[in-house]
Amino acid sequence: MSARLIGVGVGPGDPELMTLKAVRVLRDADVVAHFAKAGNASRARAIAASHLRPDVMELPLLYPVTTEIPKDSPAYCDRIAKFYDDGAAAVAAHLDAQRAVAVICEGDPLFYGSYMHLHVRLAARYRTEVVAGVTGMSGCWSAIGAPIAQGDDVFTVLPGTLAEDELVRRLADADAAVVMKLGRNLPKVRRALGRAGRLDGAMYVERGTMADAVMMRLADKPGDCAPYFAIVLVAGWESRS
Amino acid sequence: MSARLIGVGVGPGDPELMTLKAVRVLRDADVVAHFAKAGNASRARAIAASHLRPDVMELPLLYPVTTEIPKDSPAYCDRIAKFYDDGAAAVAAHLDAQRAVAVICEGDPLFYGSYMHLHVRLAARYRTEVVAGVTGMSGCWSAIGAPIAQGDDVFTVLPGTLAEDELVRRLADADAAVVMKLGRNLPKVRRALGRAGRLDGAMYVERGTMADAVMMRLADKPGDCAPYFAIVLVAGWESRS
Repeated sequence: MSARLIGVGVGPGDPELMTLKAVRVLRDADVVAHFAKAGNASRARAIAASHLRPDVMELPLLYPVTTEIPKDSPAYCDRIAKFYDDGAAAVAAHLDAQRAVAVICEGDPLFYGSYMHLHVRLAARYRTEVVAGVTGMSGCWSAIGAPIAQGDDVFTVLPGTLAEDELVRRLADADAAVVMKLGRNLPKVRRALGRAGRLDGAMYVERGTMADAVMMRLADKPGDCAPYFAIVLVAGWESRS
Repeated sequence: MSARLIGVGVGPGDPELMTLKAVRVLRDADVVAHFAKAGNASRARAIAASHLRPDVMELPLLYPVTTEIPKDSPAYCDRIAKFYDDGAAAVAAHLDAQRAVAVICEGDPLFYGSYMHLHVRLAARYRTEVVAGVTGMSGCWSAIGAPIAQGDDVFTVLPGTLAEDELVRRLADADAAVVMKLGRNLPKVRRALGRAGRLDGAMYVERGTMADAVMMRLADKPGDCAPYFAIVLVAGWESRS
């Protein structure tokens, strides 16, 4: 193959939710790159594992450990920017050697994905293609069978990191909503949904498309902790006639 | 197979963006149902055509012609509700005969799809499964390589049918946005994006994943008409440091 950067969405977790195109691209790529936290296996790689050629070159891109640095400090931003700069340089070295590099990503590459940090650094210089994937949130609402948005619904995705008042305002202003980045934001998100009058219909989902999925009404979820990747779904259908 | 209702997303248009699971379910289903406007071919069926068994039973669900009825009238609502009731009864007849019925849908079944009208009528009575699909909007932002949302971005999907002031307010309030249902709402949507200060970065896309795709800056789009399924993308990345 010739030099080509390909962002490849591998879907929400169930390997069967990969697209035919993702499978083909992985079979043809010279190099497969994947993001992971240092010391952890890449979740995208685990999803795509059975479609990687035994002889394919792999390029793991390992996030630096930054727990000791405040997330709003310039030092944190510098560290992360340097990580993406270095990752882009490593990918560019393969592209300069005329290799096709597939960067695999959970969900969809351009929807809250790490791939886009490489894309904005490289797409102007190299032939680039993006293979859309099934998002994590689609996997979750499909798993619970929640008709999320319909007709003239306004649909909003909110990070759980927003301030509580801002969450209340935006939840009350949308017909359908997804709240991501739960983690320790769970108690705040639950309070905000209550204040917005939307807690009753809110569903909590972890690993929606996997065998070990956890799904329940958010009101019934015990404790104040959740994995960072858990999400809350508020379906629009309920509020419609 | 035994009685089972399966909502199957077949993705945004490119048949290669179907999932492995959608292909398997279609190969195993006894009946494949699809929605279309009367007199038109089903777009979901066209996407999935090469994966339908030659001997599969097909159940076309043809929307009634309603151009003569005002869309906000009770007569219109009654007509549409009866159409979905009749469709659900036709599907139920196959389920009662112990058949597995796959209802194929463009994009994702539970995200602004017709399938959910059957789902809410049948899921409580029959074994039901939903196979998530790549949404039309993912197909579009992948086709233009637009990093749509990242980090703590607030992402919103808006119908072009909203009033202009409401579009302005919501576009100014989101980091990233998709506007659907353009059609004759195009001039209003363009004005609203200009008033919200977001026209410069707005992209117009028709059939993003198809060979005859149309993509351009919305500011450059000539004329005041667009197909109903065309969408406008406003990427959040631009507004971030």
